[in-house]
Amino acid sequence: MEPMELPRLFDRDTLPTRPRPGTAPAGQDILTVAQFGRPLLGHIFQRADEMKVMVERAGGCDLLRGHVLACLFYEPSTRTSASFIAAMERLGGSVIPITQGVQFSSVSKGESLPDTVRTLEQYADVIVLRHPDVGSAKVAADYAAVPVINAGDGAGEHPTQALLDLFTIREELGAIDGRRVAMVGDLRHGRTVHSLTRLLLQYDVSLRFVSPDTLRLPMALMNELIDQKRDVRETHDVADVIADADVLYVTRIQKERFADLAHYEEVKDLYEITPEIMRQAKEKMVVMHPLPRVGEIHYAVDADPRAAYFRQVKKGMYVRMALLAMVLGKA
Amino acid sequence: MEPMELPRLFDRDTLPTRPRPGTAPAGQDILTVAQFGRPLLGHIFQRADEMKVMVERAGGCDLLRGHVLACLFYEPSTRTSASFIAAMERLGGSVIPITQGVQFSSVSKGESLPDTVRTLEQYADVIVLRHPDVGSAKVAADYAAVPVINAGDGAGEHPTQALLDLFTIREELGAIDGRRVAMVGDLRHGRTVHSLTRLLLQYDVSLRFVSPDTLRLPMALMNELIDQKRDVRETHDVADVIADADVLYVTRIQKERFADLAHYEEVKDLYEITPEIMRQAKEKMVVMHPLPRVGEIHYAVDADPRAAYFRQVKKGMYVRMALLAMVLGKA
Amino acid sequence: MEPMELPRLFDRDTLPTRPRPGTAPAGQDILTVAQFGRPLLGHIFQRADEMKVMVERAGGCDLLRGHVLACLFYEPSTRTSASFIAAMERLGGSVIPITQGVQFSSVSKGESLPDTVRTLEQYADVIVLRHPDVGSAKVAADYAAVPVINAGDGAGEHPTQALLDLFTIREELGAIDGRRVAMVGDLRHGRTVHSLTRLLLQYDVSLRFVSPDTLRLPMALMNELIDQKRDVRETHDVADVIADADVLYVTRIQKERFADLAHYEEVKDLYEITPEIMRQAKEKMVVMHPLPRVGEIHYAVDADPRAAYFRQVKKGMYVRMALLAMVLGKA
Repeated sequence: MEPMELPRLFDRDTLPTRPRPGTAPAGQDILTVAQFGRPLLGHIFQRADEMKVMVERAGGCDLLRGHVLACLFYEPSTRTSASFIAAMERLGGSVIPITQGVQFSSVSKGESLPDTVRTLEQYADVIVLRHPDVGSAKVAADYAAVPVINAGDGAGEHPTQALLDLFTIREELGAIDGRRVAMVGDLRHGRTVHSLTRLLLQYDVSLRFVSPDTLRLPMALMNELIDQKRDVRETHDVADVIADADVLYVTRIQKERFADLAHYEEVKDLYEITPEIMRQAKEKMVVMHPLPRVGEIHYAVDADPRAAYFRQVKKGMYVRMALLAMVLGKA
Repeated sequence: MEPMELPRLFDRDTLPTRPRPGTAPAGQDILTVAQFGRPLLGHIFQRADEMKVMVERAGGCDLLRGHVLACLFYEPSTRTSASFIAAMERLGGSVIPITQGVQFSSVSKGESLPDTVRTLEQYADVIVLRHPDVGSAKVAADYAAVPVINAGDGAGEHPTQALLDLFTIREELGAIDGRRVAMVGDLRHGRTVHSLTRLLLQYDVSLRFVSPDTLRLPMALMNELIDQKRDVRETHDVADVIADADVLYVTRIQKERFADLAHYEEVKDLYEITPEIMRQAKEKMVVMHPLPRVGEIHYAVDADPRAAYFRQVKKGMYVRMALLAMVLGKA
Repeated sequence: MEPMELPRLFDRDTLPTRPRPGTAPAGQDILTVAQFGRPLLGHIFQRADEMKVMVERAGGCDLLRGHVLACLFYEPSTRTSASFIAAMERLGGSVIPITQGVQFSSVSKGESLPDTVRTLEQYADVIVLRHPDVGSAKVAADYAAVPVINAGDGAGEHPTQALLDLFTIREELGAIDGRRVAMVGDLRHGRTVHSLTRLLLQYDVSLRFVSPDTLRLPMALMNELIDQKRDVRETHDVADVIADADVLYVTRIQKERFADLAHYEEVKDLYEITPEIMRQAKEKMVVMHPLPRVGEIHYAVDADPRAAYFRQVKKGMYVRMALLAMVLGKA
């Protein structure tokens, strides 16, 4: 009593065939900056450049048409999720947005991360994961058959942020080699500072670290730099680095990191970048910030052409477009 | 050690070029009904009409393909956000939905509205903003390089609602000039009543205002009407206006506006529109409501062909499609 | 003072015309498994098969381009909403995601389900509804002019889950007739068990029910099976059914169903499926689960080729693609 065969919806012979992943990072996960050597970084930059031209000219394209991204955020992050959503949409792909951490329902029913990931990979071609636990992106990637992109795993890594920081330096200054990069603020807890520093080790750069004593770069990372005989130096004062810096990378001092609030109050306003400070800086240099800022950079600096932090946001979209296209075998 | 050049993803010479905004409101913000003179209103109505035909025939089109809308709602409003999302999608564009007010994460980290807007404009071509504070849409527009559409700024304005109300009157009754419009309910706090009234001043209409003494139209607005020698009149009773009204515009009496709940209880059920009341109305007239309703219009009225409030919702989508296309330089 | 006519955006004569719904279930609601006789089930399976081929080859298509789905979830369900979102997107359609139950704003303002539905149908071509109240999908369908798909109405039905379960059995085992299906767990409250059982009555199958005494299949359903003289049998022990089962359909024992937590603790781990148990099963059979699981199936079973529960998730997307295309008159 099976029904008569219906006329076919699709002609199987003329259906476009999805190319199998071929080039280097196709099908791969993006979990840590340690994956990225200089040749691959160069590839990403070229693709991100192309994305920039494409978006400026046409707004969007069809490169990832028929592809679906699952945006799985166990903790909300408007900036990062919006960036990935826009990146996917401008490439013609679609998004399943699961960006309301707290209300994520299967999890509240007790589902494990591996099960959630193995469910979503049935619907999606790539998973972007933000999760509060260090190592969670690795766990997800171990279980998923589709590429997993780490969009922040707690105090662990946030590799696409570091990649976009690096791309911004290259785009703004023409090259990375030979530059002096000064990082300012909470260098102890700052995930982005650590990841960007590791990426910069691929290049010939000088590094300056500005922080209070209690928020200095972790010893392990500093020892790495010393072992590699890098031109590196720590200081308490922006004044010591501002005149020579090609890049001033400012970070937020995050209240939630401090057990002792008196300590927070003591350091929180140490490093506000003002127009006065900018007067001591070179004419060709950039101020960067991973955002959001709450007071580290005075609003009056925004009009300064060297203020690159909003341009940095856009470059982030280009880098994520490049990464999505690459892991999906399209770039 | 930069890698060999990769084959290009896009041919720069054949990439479609995005037309530069040209016609009148391209690139402009939509902040207040004060922006809209009669010629521009006529343009919007023609475009909205075209959207209606297009949606009825084809469902959607590619006019805004490659364009991205950031839907930024600091307080949730399902109806309005769904309307803008559908409008953008039916035009072939994409949406970044940030519609869960409370959990908006960058804000909880202390980010200012100007910074949030300057971030989102890196991803999106247009921003629709709902915010609880009067004037916030203006602030956002002052900072944003892309068009900002005000989708309600607290007790301020909600211009696209007023535009869709006006379009509905025109579509339902063929013309606006010569009509008698009666507004009913909380005329003191009703943002939509104030904005629609101001738009109607562009046309030759009679106005009737039905409210309890405590919820009358604000004096400033009433004085404007009187100064312009408009045919205007206030009353306590729907019975005084129902026989002559071409439009009965009913609004909800919002509990949250009352400091004194006894006062609310006294007025909340004053103006329920029932089939009995509708029997006194003209054969060709319409009942409108910005929705949601909670009891101002009896369910038994829904089957009356003069009940236009759900058709009004659809016309709202057409108007928003027209506005999105216009500010993006496509109409 | 109306403005000069603008040049037209769309050429009305060449606009693609949306085909009117023609074939059987076009324009219909999907509310209960009782709607589905065997011929219609066969149609759905054929369409779902086609969707599978299309997705595997091309990722997506344009079948539902210009169509919009409103995904209206009064209670969150990541798995189900993600499945429908991906289904719509892979068919080229768009989605209005309203998936954050608690914050659904119009509802908090006191709007009724009929009004919400009649609002959303102005924006969307089809509504998928998850609601905590039994019968709510029927109410929504009674008011909506567009098709409503029930994605779970409390303790009522979840017909698309049952359809995907049935499709999975057919895909995994080649046919449904002649199979022995064993259901395990909470058979008293399990909505999916009841719906799937009713669908299986269309086929020539043997049924085995494994549960503790307190969670047995409801009497009414059991009596139906007995009246139809089905090959049916109840037991307390998986061991009694494992050797002969073609399908082992495992369900979660849901803590929230138990007034007496001591009772829950007693039964919750009764039926963990382990590799040891699987050793007694046939070589060609499948283990299914509606997911999420919390401990009913040991992780070590996942690698077993007979573990079909993640494949079942993907087949769910294909079935929902078929259903969306069908109710929209495209299949």
